[in-house]
Amino acid sequence: MFTLYFSKGSSALAPHILLEEIGADYKADERSIPQGAHLTTEFLAVNPKGRVPALLTPDGIITENPAILWYIGEAFPEAELLPTDLYSRARIQELNAYICSTAHVAFAHKGRGQRWSDDPAVIEGMKAKVADNLRECATLVETQYLTGRWALGDTYSISDPYLFLLHRWMKQADLDIAEFPKLNAHRKSMLARDGTMAALSQHGI
Amino acid sequence: MFTLYFSKGSSALAPHILLEEIGADYKADERSIPQGAHLTTEFLAVNPKGRVPALLTPDGIITENPAILWYIGEAFPEAELLPTDLYSRARIQELNAYICSTAHVAFAHKGRGQRWSDDPAVIEGMKAKVADNLRECATLVETQYLTGRWALGDTYSISDPYLFLLHRWMKQADLDIAEFPKLNAHRKSMLARDGTMAALSQHGI
Repeated sequence: MFTLYFSKGSSALAPHILLEEIGADYKADERSIPQGAHLTTEFLAVNPKGRVPALLTPDGIITENPAILWYIGEAFPEAELLPTDLYSRARIQELNAYICSTAHVAFAHKGRGQRWSDDPAVIEGMKAKVADNLRECATLVETQYLTGRWALGDTYSISDPYLFLLHRWMKQADLDIAEFPKLNAHRKSMLARDGTMAALSQHGI
Repeated sequence: MFTLYFSKGSSALAPHILLEEIGADYKADERSIPQGAHLTTEFLAVNPKGRVPALLTPDGIITENPAILWYIGEAFPEAELLPTDLYSRARIQELNAYICSTAHVAFAHKGRGQRWSDDPAVIEGMKAKVADNLRECATLVETQYLTGRWALGDTYSISDPYLFLLHRWMKQADLDIAEFPKLNAHRKSMLARDGTMAALSQHGI
């Protein structure tokens, strides 16, 4: 039994989709960021970072999307969410690291600029390049991944629900995903799965 | 046989240390960032991101530190750089994801602000909070990891050379590592290893 701490519309959507996808025995526990529920004393004791997602496992808490997604992949081997050959595994980690450290960070400069500055003018100034940066991310993913129907080829993996977030960030930055045929097809493939729809529903999307 | 593309003093130091640590059969191929050697047509064909580190393996190129470090861990099981239980593995990924998406990004706002803005005033303004953010990272690592001599306890893992970068970023942001006893002890433990010293030497440090 797992508990996924999430806020609607946050990046917790990725592991949420994955847990639904595999029919895991889990509870979704909402900690609304708009309502500040991620910063209560009680939640900071669970996750000192004050962030979601966080996954409570029988062994302890796990934070950071790449770690949560990989853990789910290893904990449910029968779901075959992780390849067995070392290079394909590295490619999954590579894409996940790129999403968390480049794409998500690029998007965060739109609405979370206070992480990197206390100056309102600087925070406002950080927003100007967000769309360009996300376009660069989309181009890289379009040209370096998505060699098949899914992020890493012909098999659905832990990277697919994570990549699904990029579609959402692009939309919020007023980018047209239709300019990226492979990403657009990936979005449609994701939306055709029950696991995706079940998680989206819980996020009110 | 592997080729590690690196620039002196860059975050490529982490896999460089790891390759030295395990005595891997590899070649270090310098692509100096200050000289723009990471942006040549030839190197962009190797790594379209124009970044180092990049690790050329018999199967293809791998980019992103968390992916390179994990790949080395899995490719050299006899070096025992990765634990076998799922939760400890997740904790390694968690720390690596935090270093790449939070600590490294925090530091990058000091000297790589052009990634997120084209406005010189905004780029300059991003520098003001770097030390505070890295102090927060150091505090989190000090309180949530380093439960033993190494990042994840009593055993050296792929996270240790990666965490070693934080010491360097703190120094460049004029933070005193001595304020963080566990991080300071970790730094000393790292400097006592031949693999660390061999890699530092190749970086001219």
